[in-house]
Amino acid sequence: MNKEMLPVSFTCDYCEGAHPRILERLAETNFAQEPGYGFDSFSKSARARIREATGCPEADVFFLTGGTQTNATVIDSLLHGFEGVIAANTGHIAVHESGAVEFGGHKVITLPGKEGKLNADDLNTYLEAFYADEAWEHMVIPGMVYISFPTEYGTIYSRSELESLKAICSRYKLPLFIDGARLGYGLASPACDITLPQLARLCDVFYIGGTKVGALCGEAVVFPGGNAPAHFFTTVKQHGALMAKGRLCGVQFDTLFTDDLYMQISRNAIKMAMDLKAIFAARGIPLYIDSPTNQQFPIMTQKDLAPLEGKVLYEIWEHLPDRRLVTRFATSWATTAEQLEYLASLL
Amino acid sequence: MNKEMLPVSFTCDYCEGAHPRILERLAETNFAQEPGYGFDSFSKSARARIREATGCPEADVFFLTGGTQTNATVIDSLLHGFEGVIAANTGHIAVHESGAVEFGGHKVITLPGKEGKLNADDLNTYLEAFYADEAWEHMVIPGMVYISFPTEYGTIYSRSELESLKAICSRYKLPLFIDGARLGYGLASPACDITLPQLARLCDVFYIGGTKVGALCGEAVVFPGGNAPAHFFTTVKQHGALMAKGRLCGVQFDTLFTDDLYMQISRNAIKMAMDLKAIFAARGIPLYIDSPTNQQFPIMTQKDLAPLEGKVLYEIWEHLPDRRLVTRFATSWATTAEQLEYLASLL
Amino acid sequence: MNKEMLPVSFTCDYCEGAHPRILERLAETNFAQEPGYGFDSFSKSARARIREATGCPEADVFFLTGGTQTNATVIDSLLHGFEGVIAANTGHIAVHESGAVEFGGHKVITLPGKEGKLNADDLNTYLEAFYADEAWEHMVIPGMVYISFPTEYGTIYSRSELESLKAICSRYKLPLFIDGARLGYGLASPACDITLPQLARLCDVFYIGGTKVGALCGEAVVFPGGNAPAHFFTTVKQHGALMAKGRLCGVQFDTLFTDDLYMQISRNAIKMAMDLKAIFAARGIPLYIDSPTNQQFPIMTQKDLAPLEGKVLYEIWEHLPDRRLVTRFATSWATTAEQLEYLASLL
Amino acid sequence: MNKEMLPVSFTCDYCEGAHPRILERLAETNFAQEPGYGFDSFSKSARARIREATGCPEADVFFLTGGTQTNATVIDSLLHGFEGVIAANTGHIAVHESGAVEFGGHKVITLPGKEGKLNADDLNTYLEAFYADEAWEHMVIPGMVYISFPTEYGTIYSRSELESLKAICSRYKLPLFIDGARLGYGLASPACDITLPQLARLCDVFYIGGTKVGALCGEAVVFPGGNAPAHFFTTVKQHGALMAKGRLCGVQFDTLFTDDLYMQISRNAIKMAMDLKAIFAARGIPLYIDSPTNQQFPIMTQKDLAPLEGKVLYEIWEHLPDRRLVTRFATSWATTAEQLEYLASLL
Repeated sequence: MNKEMLPVSFTCDYCEGAHPRILERLAETNFAQEPGYGFDSFSKSARARIREATGCPEADVFFLTGGTQTNATVIDSLLHGFEGVIAANTGHIAVHESGAVEFGGHKVITLPGKEGKLNADDLNTYLEAFYADEAWEHMVIPGMVYISFPTEYGTIYSRSELESLKAICSRYKLPLFIDGARLGYGLASPACDITLPQLARLCDVFYIGGTKVGALCGEAVVFPGGNAPAHFFTTVKQHGALMAKGRLCGVQFDTLFTDDLYMQISRNAIKMAMDLKAIFAARGIPLYIDSPTNQQFPIMTQKDLAPLEGKVLYEIWEHLPDRRLVTRFATSWATTAEQLEYLASLL
Repeated sequence: MNKEMLPVSFTCDYCEGAHPRILERLAETNFAQEPGYGFDSFSKSARARIREATGCPEADVFFLTGGTQTNATVIDSLLHGFEGVIAANTGHIAVHESGAVEFGGHKVITLPGKEGKLNADDLNTYLEAFYADEAWEHMVIPGMVYISFPTEYGTIYSRSELESLKAICSRYKLPLFIDGARLGYGLASPACDITLPQLARLCDVFYIGGTKVGALCGEAVVFPGGNAPAHFFTTVKQHGALMAKGRLCGVQFDTLFTDDLYMQISRNAIKMAMDLKAIFAARGIPLYIDSPTNQQFPIMTQKDLAPLEGKVLYEIWEHLPDRRLVTRFATSWATTAEQLEYLASLL
Repeated sequence: MNKEMLPVSFTCDYCEGAHPRILERLAETNFAQEPGYGFDSFSKSARARIREATGCPEADVFFLTGGTQTNATVIDSLLHGFEGVIAANTGHIAVHESGAVEFGGHKVITLPGKEGKLNADDLNTYLEAFYADEAWEHMVIPGMVYISFPTEYGTIYSRSELESLKAICSRYKLPLFIDGARLGYGLASPACDITLPQLARLCDVFYIGGTKVGALCGEAVVFPGGNAPAHFFTTVKQHGALMAKGRLCGVQFDTLFTDDLYMQISRNAIKMAMDLKAIFAARGIPLYIDSPTNQQFPIMTQKDLAPLEGKVLYEIWEHLPDRRLVTRFATSWATTAEQLEYLASLL
Repeated sequence: MNKEMLPVSFTCDYCEGAHPRILERLAETNFAQEPGYGFDSFSKSARARIREATGCPEADVFFLTGGTQTNATVIDSLLHGFEGVIAANTGHIAVHESGAVEFGGHKVITLPGKEGKLNADDLNTYLEAFYADEAWEHMVIPGMVYISFPTEYGTIYSRSELESLKAICSRYKLPLFIDGARLGYGLASPACDITLPQLARLCDVFYIGGTKVGALCGEAVVFPGGNAPAHFFTTVKQHGALMAKGRLCGVQFDTLFTDDLYMQISRNAIKMAMDLKAIFAARGIPLYIDSPTNQQFPIMTQKDLAPLEGKVLYEIWEHLPDRRLVTRFATSWATTAEQLEYLASLL
């Protein structure tokens, strides 16, 4: 490992800038004069490419800049004032968004998740019990369901799990929203039994994460059936989520969805993650969760970690009672084999 | 004019991408692994440079991505729930932000502006009348004052006007907030009698606009006296305004505040605007407002505009009763002499 | 005038408790055990009587406790997040409700009123201009229209004025909401050319004010066509406007709508107001506004007011430049001829 | 039992109107002309009496109309935008207020309660873990603590439990708010080891419930140290919680705090509750929770309940897996020995 590149960081999947092709394209298009607010030609092209990649020719596509913002805006646009959004108790909106959903006036109704996933049976049980409760009109009425794919624990839903969730949502007329901040890393996983077009058909709205998958910033919200709520543009503006230079997201997503770049770089992250897993396995280091995506959660002793000090960065996820640490090592589009080898050499 | 660059657009100051030095710097730094959320080294450096440029060594500096978002976040962070923000009736927050301030629960209390500016006497008269009204506790209590510099009409406040506003704000303990979406274009104007450090001392918080002054996105919020409200970081996150890759803004502002680039490119916009003014004057085309900054408002007849069709773009600002149009022509950091010559050749 | 009743107050129409028949009925029904939250038999009966009095057999009727609360709840229930409510600039929601509408996230879009009234042509001009503005999607989208009947200045809309407003609302699909805090005093005016059923048909929702017309508290919200928004009950609860002892409003409105009591006591207020007007006229005291309802606005000199000191109370409405005062004298269901005679004797 | 009084309802403690002395006093004072909005002489007197009863001569006292409204208003007045309120997961604000706290923009942070009570150790553990979490600035920051006394399960905190909670709140500078919707029933319990003045000193704000303890409506918010947030009056108005006829609450609380009426009628409810408990005990009917206050939770079989059908009303609280029902029987200020005897005769 080149000394000036040290320490090597596995703390997250947003440590680097953007995929070089994005920077090239920003430079090439820099002086083209274009309208603002997403009406530029790059955003138009990007929307067309996303419609094609998702197999949704009618889709409404909007570009926002970050995950919390996107979650808050989409959720607020879909809920009536008296409604809340159902999520797993580990869901990003329930934990790490500083109350952005509540800022918009809505409760996050949490159900216990299993390794980050919301279970269809649990959802059904909750909804049945809710409407069986005589006092339900005094409570926050469930208005939609939020899941993340992959979840905050790196796990993914199987096709059949999504179908079960969707079936219950349909029965109760609840839109299903998929937070795809790391969507590419989910779809590229060998454990994933679903394609992007299939996923698009199993929800009412989702977003394709850019920030964590090779872009400088940006999330592409997709309403697969052209079912964006009325005046969603104005809602985005009201939420402070409308970029004047919409071209910044436009160019990035146009590039990511050209020549399959989005999936190609996602696959790199997954390959690196699987290699990472192998490194831990070879050393008998157990995993907290058997994650099939780019986040890995090895349980490390202080002794395991000592050689990494100052050389490799990772995140501490949880302190176990036996003083071991659940750590998180994240790979990304930018992770290299060299970085992994360096880690392996230290462990 | 090179045919492939046609039409030439003067519609706004965010038609192009970013100043090339910014793109270069993004490319150079692209693979450096950095922490997220503004803790990267570029953001740190940018904050230091901004503290120096503003002459505020204690300043708290935060980077957000766009103007509406910044206004809504700063205002919400400074107001109590029962308070509103005072603005000129033409203020951006009162007109073109889709109710982002109201979304946060606050009323925009509008006073009639003069060419976009809030007058200190009008402010004083309003505040005196407010507290003289027996029913004031049944009304929205004024909690801060918002002005833009330059205003939405391209006008700027003189030093003495700012001092008068600040004096009244101080008397009523109202924070004064300056929306500097186009700050550079104000400071670079020959009509401006104030420097950046002087402006910083005459308000409680302001922001340095990046999106309209050479950046891809980004606004730098400055609390000059280190007077950011407690937990402003969390407020930014809650408002969906915290970038995961804070480096994107960090690199941009670090570049803009290196070698005086921000003011240098602002001066280009002003030189171009003054030349533009001369072009209109030479042809006897009157101006709606005598703007000393980068936005010019020529009053055009249909005959004046006919030769521009398909070749030069501008914005229609207002329809006059005599069928003439108030138009807006904006220059920017990117405007070239060649573009002006082309416009002149057509008129 | 009995000394112990001094001073006599004309400051407002909520100086006394409730009409005695209401108190009697509260006492008679006091120990009947009834369900809460408006499911009691009195509320049911009151709703039936209101449906009959308004000629709206399908109407949805809800009882809330006060005016600001009712306005905020109804408005929030009808607007999408990105919408605002149009009102005259003198409208109660725009001035004297401490920003309750903005607390719910919505802008009050004000148009200049004429003697408190919103003019249909002004409304139309605003709406045409709004949608003609290229930037309308960046603005707060008008979502409904609010008027008060009578207005804050005591004036009332004629049938034809209401029809004009309704026609424009219909064209733009905007619900029309009538704040009837003093509804009885409007309907009982000799200048009123509309009945309660006619008024009900000319709007989408209105409320029948109780607090200012003989009740201890309470406003009856009527959606004439059974067009209450879904889950309005929950919205009322969420807004803190649902009474546990719904019977309190139920008994009161049941009484007010028995034997025409509501209109009968409203007529008393109007008769007293017309007599009051005559008292001022006889003394050459001019009126600021020629109000046909229970609020009168005599323009008084200090000399006129001197004899009232300590004996008669009124409200100061405005200070005129010539040092005269616009005062407000309000009559109510409780005003007596004896009180007027006493005032007359002093002037 | 008099047939016309059937069925007898134990469903809640707000089945009847008001204590007769309140109705008498409303009648006696009905025609006194008084200012609105709580400036009437009755409210002033009531505030003085409450200051005396609570032993807090400096207390700020405000009258609102209902529990949800009071909770939402007090909480919103005390929290910054980025803060949430901590409550037991069974707390009224977390469950049965239709998201009124979230409507104000704040998250209810729930901790598992024990029989409705928030445990000081659990609170401490949560707070320690919160600030130990590296990502705490990305989360909702705890800004106050909410407890109810008695709880939703009829349980009460001991003096030492309150002291422990208060100590932790003080350490973290979190205001402690006590929801006293049924305060009298808690204080009157034989199990209660705390007086009203002692309770007042152990919190930062609490309210004395009127609606459930003999009033038609009304809750008295007490800031014991005169520590109401600035402009709390305006906040109350903004929340739609300010009564025009403030006298309605004023007269009621003035009466309730004359001659110890509030505690006297509370003691009736507790005596009846203890007799009720004895009735169940005598028949071997187990209790779900050993509640020392006015709510009792007998676990009943279908056979137990059969004789009550159509004659005695109660609430179903929970369905147990063995098909037994947890029921709730509530006594109140109005419950009579005759009613209990009737119930006993049926069981």
